[in-house]
Amino acid sequence: MEEPGGPEIARLIALMAKLPGLGPRSARRAVLAMARRREALLAPLARAMADVAERAKLCGLCGNLGTSDPCAICADPRRDPSALCVVEDVGDLWALERAGVFRGRYHVLGGVLSALDGVGPQALRIPQLEARVAEAGVAEVILALGATVDGATTAHYIAERLEGRGLRVTSLGQGVPVGGSLDYLDDGTLGAALRARREF
Amino acid sequence: MEEPGGPEIARLIALMAKLPGLGPRSARRAVLAMARRREALLAPLARAMADVAERAKLCGLCGNLGTSDPCAICADPRRDPSALCVVEDVGDLWALERAGVFRGRYHVLGGVLSALDGVGPQALRIPQLEARVAEAGVAEVILALGATVDGATTAHYIAERLEGRGLRVTSLGQGVPVGGSLDYLDDGTLGAALRARREF
Repeated sequence: MEEPGGPEIARLIALMAKLPGLGPRSARRAVLAMARRREALLAPLARAMADVAERAKLCGLCGNLGTSDPCAICADPRRDPSALCVVEDVGDLWALERAGVFRGRYHVLGGVLSALDGVGPQALRIPQLEARVAEAGVAEVILALGATVDGATTAHYIAERLEGRGLRVTSLGQGVPVGGSLDYLDDGTLGAALRARREF
Repeated sequence: MEEPGGPEIARLIALMAKLPGLGPRSARRAVLAMARRREALLAPLARAMADVAERAKLCGLCGNLGTSDPCAICADPRRDPSALCVVEDVGDLWALERAGVFRGRYHVLGGVLSALDGVGPQALRIPQLEARVAEAGVAEVILALGATVDGATTAHYIAERLEGRGLRVTSLGQGVPVGGSLDYLDDGTLGAALRARREF
């Protein structure tokens, strides 16, 4: 099906439709909205994308996405070097940073172990994690991985690799999410919340 | 709230979040997905956007968005010059073209009359429509406007302006949409469908 706007616009729509959360229809709407606001939106977006395409790099230490290497977090002397938080990907790191709850440093694995998808330890940044833990004054490794089968498998594998180094290895608490209603929680979460009960 | 990826990435996320259908969270996801596929997605998108930002123009005749003026539709000698289809915006024109049901030409109004939003006839391309109708060999004007109060007001206004010129002025048929179940249709549509009933 040919787009009535011509090949350049058709190409932009096709590329936009590859973004997560957008399909052909919403990509078309987005392109129309951009074309209507050419100076305020389309031209700045083109420049911002070219900028990021040229300057974005992964931090060689933690794997964060940014425009400097080491990234702003690894380079910040106010961050606690003794706590290292292991996450699956950059989005998880950003989520923790937005929450503003962690003042240590991160280590992005770039995925989790998955037998189904054929992701083994060599495909993740686990050797780099072991090297970082051996070098720096790391006292605690927090395994902030998803509460999925693959996330738990990965956490166990890493905990085993880090054994016998005198490190504290922890994982995130499980339980009722803030604002969560018991009625809507699954059995696994309810069980975990009950096991993790505290004095009131 | 500062984005942990640095100012360039924060700026790209903020711009992406202005697109229809995207918010801050989905813009962040989209930017991460682009950054992961820099050569396959981010760099081509930046180029496609710069291309469209530079070359996109509205057709001086019909108001379609494209990269040539007159647009590919107005310049196509196989299109029937006697039928002119009036639509609210470029998205509507594209929808009709994708459906492939109309072989005449278009006229984009750029909106509909709206007392609430203060859109009067002078803000729309209605004078241009009258001029086109007077010049060319137009025999029928199809008012393909939305079935809303403002759409109907606009259709009435245009029909009045075109009166006494020996033109056929029509509007889209109303009724049950293809695949539509009666149970889910509103009373207005059911009424329109009943009034528009045909011999079986």
